[in-house]
Amino acid sequence: MTTNEKFPARVYKDTVLAPLFEGVKRHHWRYQMRINQASAVLLAECGLLAPKEARDILEALDDILKTIDLERLVYTGEHEDFFYYVESELIRRLGVEVAGKLHTGRSRNDIDHTVFKLALKDRLAALLDAHLATIEAILAVALRERETIVVAYTHGQPAQPTTYGHYLAAFVELSLRDADRLLHAARTVDLSSMGAAAITTSGFGLDRRRMAELLGFAGVQENSYGCIAAADYATGVYAALKLLFIHAGRFVQDLNAWTGFEIGHLHVPDAFVQVSSIMPQKRNPVPVEHLRLMASLGAARCEAVLTAVHNTPFTDMNDSEGEVQIAGYDAFDTAHRFMPLLSGLLDAATIDGARVRRHIDEAGITLAELADSLVRTETISFRQAHDVASRLARRMIDGGMTLSTIAFSEFQQIFVAAIGRPPALSEADFRRFTTPEHFIGVRTMEGGPAPAPLAASFARYRDDIVGKRAVVAALNARNAAAEDLLAREVARRTAGA
Amino acid sequence: MTTNEKFPARVYKDTVLAPLFEGVKRHHWRYQMRINQASAVLLAECGLLAPKEARDILEALDDILKTIDLERLVYTGEHEDFFYYVESELIRRLGVEVAGKLHTGRSRNDIDHTVFKLALKDRLAALLDAHLATIEAILAVALRERETIVVAYTHGQPAQPTTYGHYLAAFVELSLRDADRLLHAARTVDLSSMGAAAITTSGFGLDRRRMAELLGFAGVQENSYGCIAAADYATGVYAALKLLFIHAGRFVQDLNAWTGFEIGHLHVPDAFVQVSSIMPQKRNPVPVEHLRLMASLGAARCEAVLTAVHNTPFTDMNDSEGEVQIAGYDAFDTAHRFMPLLSGLLDAATIDGARVRRHIDEAGITLAELADSLVRTETISFRQAHDVASRLARRMIDGGMTLSTIAFSEFQQIFVAAIGRPPALSEADFRRFTTPEHFIGVRTMEGGPAPAPLAASFARYRDDIVGKRAVVAALNARNAAAEDLLAREVARRTAGA
Amino acid sequence: MTTNEKFPARVYKDTVLAPLFEGVKRHHWRYQMRINQASAVLLAECGLLAPKEARDILEALDDILKTIDLERLVYTGEHEDFFYYVESELIRRLGVEVAGKLHTGRSRNDIDHTVFKLALKDRLAALLDAHLATIEAILAVALRERETIVVAYTHGQPAQPTTYGHYLAAFVELSLRDADRLLHAARTVDLSSMGAAAITTSGFGLDRRRMAELLGFAGVQENSYGCIAAADYATGVYAALKLLFIHAGRFVQDLNAWTGFEIGHLHVPDAFVQVSSIMPQKRNPVPVEHLRLMASLGAARCEAVLTAVHNTPFTDMNDSEGEVQIAGYDAFDTAHRFMPLLSGLLDAATIDGARVRRHIDEAGITLAELADSLVRTETISFRQAHDVASRLARRMIDGGMTLSTIAFSEFQQIFVAAIGRPPALSEADFRRFTTPEHFIGVRTMEGGPAPAPLAASFARYRDDIVGKRAVVAALNARNAAAEDLLAREVARRTAGA
Amino acid sequence: MTTNEKFPARVYKDTVLAPLFEGVKRHHWRYQMRINQASAVLLAECGLLAPKEARDILEALDDILKTIDLERLVYTGEHEDFFYYVESELIRRLGVEVAGKLHTGRSRNDIDHTVFKLALKDRLAALLDAHLATIEAILAVALRERETIVVAYTHGQPAQPTTYGHYLAAFVELSLRDADRLLHAARTVDLSSMGAAAITTSGFGLDRRRMAELLGFAGVQENSYGCIAAADYATGVYAALKLLFIHAGRFVQDLNAWTGFEIGHLHVPDAFVQVSSIMPQKRNPVPVEHLRLMASLGAARCEAVLTAVHNTPFTDMNDSEGEVQIAGYDAFDTAHRFMPLLSGLLDAATIDGARVRRHIDEAGITLAELADSLVRTETISFRQAHDVASRLARRMIDGGMTLSTIAFSEFQQIFVAAIGRPPALSEADFRRFTTPEHFIGVRTMEGGPAPAPLAASFARYRDDIVGKRAVVAALNARNAAAEDLLAREVARRTAGA
Repeated sequence: MTTNEKFPARVYKDTVLAPLFEGVKRHHWRYQMRINQASAVLLAECGLLAPKEARDILEALDDILKTIDLERLVYTGEHEDFFYYVESELIRRLGVEVAGKLHTGRSRNDIDHTVFKLALKDRLAALLDAHLATIEAILAVALRERETIVVAYTHGQPAQPTTYGHYLAAFVELSLRDADRLLHAARTVDLSSMGAAAITTSGFGLDRRRMAELLGFAGVQENSYGCIAAADYATGVYAALKLLFIHAGRFVQDLNAWTGFEIGHLHVPDAFVQVSSIMPQKRNPVPVEHLRLMASLGAARCEAVLTAVHNTPFTDMNDSEGEVQIAGYDAFDTAHRFMPLLSGLLDAATIDGARVRRHIDEAGITLAELADSLVRTETISFRQAHDVASRLARRMIDGGMTLSTIAFSEFQQIFVAAIGRPPALSEADFRRFTTPEHFIGVRTMEGGPAPAPLAASFARYRDDIVGKRAVVAALNARNAAAEDLLAREVARRTAGA
Repeated sequence: MTTNEKFPARVYKDTVLAPLFEGVKRHHWRYQMRINQASAVLLAECGLLAPKEARDILEALDDILKTIDLERLVYTGEHEDFFYYVESELIRRLGVEVAGKLHTGRSRNDIDHTVFKLALKDRLAALLDAHLATIEAILAVALRERETIVVAYTHGQPAQPTTYGHYLAAFVELSLRDADRLLHAARTVDLSSMGAAAITTSGFGLDRRRMAELLGFAGVQENSYGCIAAADYATGVYAALKLLFIHAGRFVQDLNAWTGFEIGHLHVPDAFVQVSSIMPQKRNPVPVEHLRLMASLGAARCEAVLTAVHNTPFTDMNDSEGEVQIAGYDAFDTAHRFMPLLSGLLDAATIDGARVRRHIDEAGITLAELADSLVRTETISFRQAHDVASRLARRMIDGGMTLSTIAFSEFQQIFVAAIGRPPALSEADFRRFTTPEHFIGVRTMEGGPAPAPLAASFARYRDDIVGKRAVVAALNARNAAAEDLLAREVARRTAGA
Repeated sequence: MTTNEKFPARVYKDTVLAPLFEGVKRHHWRYQMRINQASAVLLAECGLLAPKEARDILEALDDILKTIDLERLVYTGEHEDFFYYVESELIRRLGVEVAGKLHTGRSRNDIDHTVFKLALKDRLAALLDAHLATIEAILAVALRERETIVVAYTHGQPAQPTTYGHYLAAFVELSLRDADRLLHAARTVDLSSMGAAAITTSGFGLDRRRMAELLGFAGVQENSYGCIAAADYATGVYAALKLLFIHAGRFVQDLNAWTGFEIGHLHVPDAFVQVSSIMPQKRNPVPVEHLRLMASLGAARCEAVLTAVHNTPFTDMNDSEGEVQIAGYDAFDTAHRFMPLLSGLLDAATIDGARVRRHIDEAGITLAELADSLVRTETISFRQAHDVASRLARRMIDGGMTLSTIAFSEFQQIFVAAIGRPPALSEADFRRFTTPEHFIGVRTMEGGPAPAPLAASFARYRDDIVGKRAVVAALNARNAAAEDLLAREVARRTAGA
Repeated sequence: MTTNEKFPARVYKDTVLAPLFEGVKRHHWRYQMRINQASAVLLAECGLLAPKEARDILEALDDILKTIDLERLVYTGEHEDFFYYVESELIRRLGVEVAGKLHTGRSRNDIDHTVFKLALKDRLAALLDAHLATIEAILAVALRERETIVVAYTHGQPAQPTTYGHYLAAFVELSLRDADRLLHAARTVDLSSMGAAAITTSGFGLDRRRMAELLGFAGVQENSYGCIAAADYATGVYAALKLLFIHAGRFVQDLNAWTGFEIGHLHVPDAFVQVSSIMPQKRNPVPVEHLRLMASLGAARCEAVLTAVHNTPFTDMNDSEGEVQIAGYDAFDTAHRFMPLLSGLLDAATIDGARVRRHIDEAGITLAELADSLVRTETISFRQAHDVASRLARRMIDGGMTLSTIAFSEFQQIFVAAIGRPPALSEADFRRFTTPEHFIGVRTMEGGPAPAPLAASFARYRDDIVGKRAVVAALNARNAAAEDLLAREVARRTAGA
């Protein structure tokens, strides 16, 4: 038994307190100091600190910020955590009569969750920047490749021609919705917990909105118990980020197929290709595998945050505090590797037009449009036209022919057999109707691959990105303005006092 | 080898096609029929169906709707699926020349995802109704119990007094944010996929927005590839619903603690209590356990949908189609058991005020406010006041006393020892400052438990619920209006032709 | 408030008790009745039931078994659950003085977990049967195709030739290890909980081992608290089954690639191929997608059981009882669809040898063996030989040649350039060394694809399957023997009394 | 476009290759060097290296080992990875003619997976050591507390008395089964992949078993494709470790309840208790929360490995290589924090006997034994005795009495009312039958809490631990012996050549 041990027990210190302290040093201490400054300003504003007390505290905080040597600051167990370390430094400088006032009307609970929100806000802003940059990069490739024909697949089989730009636009649009989800999740992060104190606020009548303003929040999270217990600001963010990883991972699986030797529609340049240590002929575009892997690990790291709070009491604290928050940051780090690699790879990769065209021909994937064209030119029903096209497909497959090599007379015979009369269609139109260019060119409906709708889509995505950039910029501007505001208030109360 | 078998292979039929057919019969066929009607109307509107053709098709669809006997409709493998079954019924009635036109410019891909969206829209509306009803029920309890004192916990320990109403408000506020997340996810579900056809739209120039209107969608999902491949309308919903389950499950863990014999703050009436088959004295409020369990299973069932699309190519289809969608419905069913049980239990359960008050006294959880009060009355710093209160706590614990039994002189001695002078505080104020009523009463800050801020919170939640009810009502109204519109268009083209 | 409601509250009945009752009717009641019989026998054996009492109870149980009409047995709330329903039927027939003795020394807790174990044992036996049958079927295909050449991939790229039999053997071996994991998990399921009563056994000195014997268990789970709380018999099974799904799903992803149009190495016959509703040329071997999907959903359904007990107190009950157990059965049902579809598909599918050979040639994947052969024939180092082969690969790729078309003189020039002397190798050997037959034929190391090691592997797998079949058969035999034993003991105490 | 970039593209280097290189430096490079040594020995043994070549290579490897400066070894992109870096160092020292022979008959694929297995073996041995040490520590507490009475709960309610030792034994037994699962998973890790080369072995006829022996493996993994693709050696370990975390986390939830203020059965000494920054009276035994959190994060980190391979082709590599393996190590690290904290806390914590006894009395949890005793002394049926006890419980609750305060005459009246005659029981027996000591003392059945069966359980657990220690020791001994063997073989071929 070790019951005579003083706090903290060695094993507790080694397995919990010291790692947490390191985590604060790495990720959170500056936010904690900023809250300390804001607290001093707020307490001064509402008269709970006299001007001189506020000045002394702010100057002492400034001194701590200037003199702290994080490298050498090793957890000893003397102070329970970084919060108490700072308080002890203030007391050492100012005495408990003054230093002891800074913690009026607050608690580690509201401070901690406010710190986590500040940290998450910064991470979200950086993530959204990177995500929007990735979307922009992919949209640029889509624009560049808006006329580049590719094979679109369903069920893993070549299905129809479209353009690479149109295909990429599908992912751009999805990614913009992923950004929407992140921005929606960010709203809850943008609500200050300060003033909730331990659970129930305090009797000091502090102005929670002013505190939120000093820290750059959009507003306050209302119910004080929820401020320190609900934790959905975190779960909401990681649930949204997990979806981003899952969705992007699906897109990567397409890239994986497209870069396979036999398909080979997407050419990955040597700069992204590993060779085999024993198979001389081999080109391994392994970044694609790494992207898939990062997406999986990123999703799992997001899920870890949800797992951490699963079936924990609403009102326990540690399951949503330091260790979990920092575990979540791994998911952000993964995203910051994933995103530039994805956009870098897509920027460098090119479509192998010759292979694409050969496979379009071999797979006969323009046949669906031949059927549609017959509906228009022959005034037969779609199912009849589809029947003609199906018979033609069967003939081609059985005879080892393709749409470019099958004789027009074969088509004519089949049409007669199916419909009971010869087709009106000329051979020239037959050939034209089975080209991928025609296929794509007639698909002018909203959301289709023809130049007009695709250009409209691009314009809308561009607008959407601009709008989202503006939202992120406004968030950042508000944060910067708050930092300025706080610095001004601090300056006014120190230099000017 | 069974290569000579005709389609479908028996094992494929038994393990895939027949179960899928049953799933369509149970969940989706009516939506498919509605789309068939809307297609006929649309094709007529843009001239791809002559008036008589449209009338014939619409009348045949109506006849199928009237005569179909789902009970007896057993999957035989003759038709690949329900879609082909209906087409064959149309052809049987009208011949392929007319019947074969209905499928012009569409595909099973866009039909399927539109069916899934329609099904999910209805489920989301019902779920939001149930969720908002649950919130209203809990808010009603919160209002009823706005002055009922309870113990608020942190780290599993009694921490501060608050009111039951204030505590429940924390969960109400969180649940409203869960509703926000669901409503945000619902937006993507509300975008029609029709017109995307197999992947790339078609050359028939169909008006996708008109089709969306006929089906009651808010708009169209733009990129046609995304319409049939992105699947984030589903992942977004289940990620949001999973969070709801996880958050509610945390709240349930609180209820679990509160209903324990030794705590016993929440009294669950006999109607919700099971007895032991061998332990006569035992009262098991097992609905709480069942709630926790349902929340866990609900979350797992949501996650199953995400698992299903994880690392599947963006452009494969089945991983986001029938079987997965139906697997997801289980999560909705779980929610529809969870929600009424939670609100029923909370409505029936009551706070055991005597136990609460005894534990407040034993745990001394009003001490934090005594410290705060000393800050105000004695003009000492918070840390000094906390020191006094800490010494008092130590004295009480060591002497087996409580705040109501400790002599005032003990407090005075402690104060002198800590601060160096006697306190200005009278005994009457000392006693008053340590009551839970005082504790709660002074906490008038935004989001706090005092009557004024709590009433303001309640008002805001009420407004929020009203607003969300209006959004759901508008969704339902749009759906109903679309059903009317479609019925009118069908009627106009049949009776009036 | 509904506090005046009698037990069970309507909402509790509708959302929990009635569904649980239906679950018992569907899955568990027969096991409960078997335990009742065994309890009566055991109590008689140790003198806690007089011979006449035992006879009366056993006859009454028999009468209940004969007359129960499950279809009409609707949950009314009169009896809390099926257990109390049976007890009330016994009391109705025998009076409480006799009927009331059956529950001596037991509790619903030990009964429930014993029921769940009996149910899981039966499901495991059936699952292992199906899994071993699947392995046998795949091994038969592997044997049939032991000389059929295929392309082996790494990083999604053609890497080396091997045989289809050798490739399938990799999955067979993995699947045998999955069977090992299931069998290991099954051991904990095979330990009876009876006698643990509610938590701590009882003072009746019942012989737990005899009870286990009567029910067909291998032994008893020792610690009585663990018997009703540990639940790892369930988590162990579902963790193992989840791995099976994940592993099999990876194999299915290979099948997905191999059945793609451009690769096309695995030909799926028409019986397993769906067509497109609008793309006439399309062959969709969608069973592969369905297999992947089933594997994902199966894994998610296993995980649901783990999620259900995550962060639940060790000593709460419902999180590992009826609803969770039944949720887990869905994973078994999924397996029983997955396994026959997988073996059926593999049995029917064939390798397209011509395509395989063409791709081997185009991809030059025998080059690694040319390098190895040069090591042996030219006594140069592997890295030098690899260098020669790499240069040859580069020449081939640049010149659009393959290993079968490149001139021998090109090889000779490259060799000279790299090594500084002409090769000793003849053209005949050069050609031979680059055939897939040579490649495979020389790989005679343990676990390699050459006929000898592959035959040895097959023999070992066969032995392994035989051994595992024997283990499963022994489990089943013990169960059957126990059923006989119980029937004999029942008969002896009724007819013979 | 950046297509003109040389390998590796900057973004690829920064996001993938450099981090992987750092990972090898931190975790894997020594294993890779050991394999290099073993390869040289093996090639020498089978004549593929001449004695002088072997000596040169082994001496060069030794020189690299001695001179490598990991700190300064920064990834530059000049060599693709650490493998190529070492090969280049060998070539620099020995020329390609000799150095180039080391890679004969192997590939990075079999090397990598063998490295991962060696690393995992070491981690498993350390983990099992820590896990068994934790079990021993808890068993020691259980032994110490074998007579300490505690309250056993079901459904979160006090249910029956038992001893702390008996309760802990339940967790010990479960933990031993977790060790079984880990040991079973370790078997697959203990099979060498060497010789599989890239996929299919090679034509060099290398002795895979000898290589396994040189590296300390129990044997070879057979099918060569499986050796580099199956990855179940990893998934099996993490699935087992995840269960350990989930099971231990459930136990921790019990500790969480037991350390709550109102229950307070488990006293946590100050060394493990944090105070509140604003609530002076508060004792937070937060290590319990941290344990729960670590268990959740540990489980999530295990699951990340399973997520990484989910739906990846059986034959892709990177999803089970370096980055995933290293991600998995985080779960081991978490375990090495969790385990000592758990055993340290349990060692220090003590049962508050007075509180336990008070709650036993208040909750009346010995009533079940009173009923059982009545069965024995009054020869009434269990259900009748339960009825008597239930009525007594009702009377006690209604009258605010406990089993120690209720008058014996009340019991007598109730008995008469229920059974129709007075009880034979004396008051002395009535009082005795309702003590926890009696309750526990009569529970002598296998697995029960009475001294005899508990001692038998402890003995069995002790034997089990000894047996498992021996298995781990044998694994470690084999590894040590192999290191010796390899060192001897290296020495013989260098000094002695």
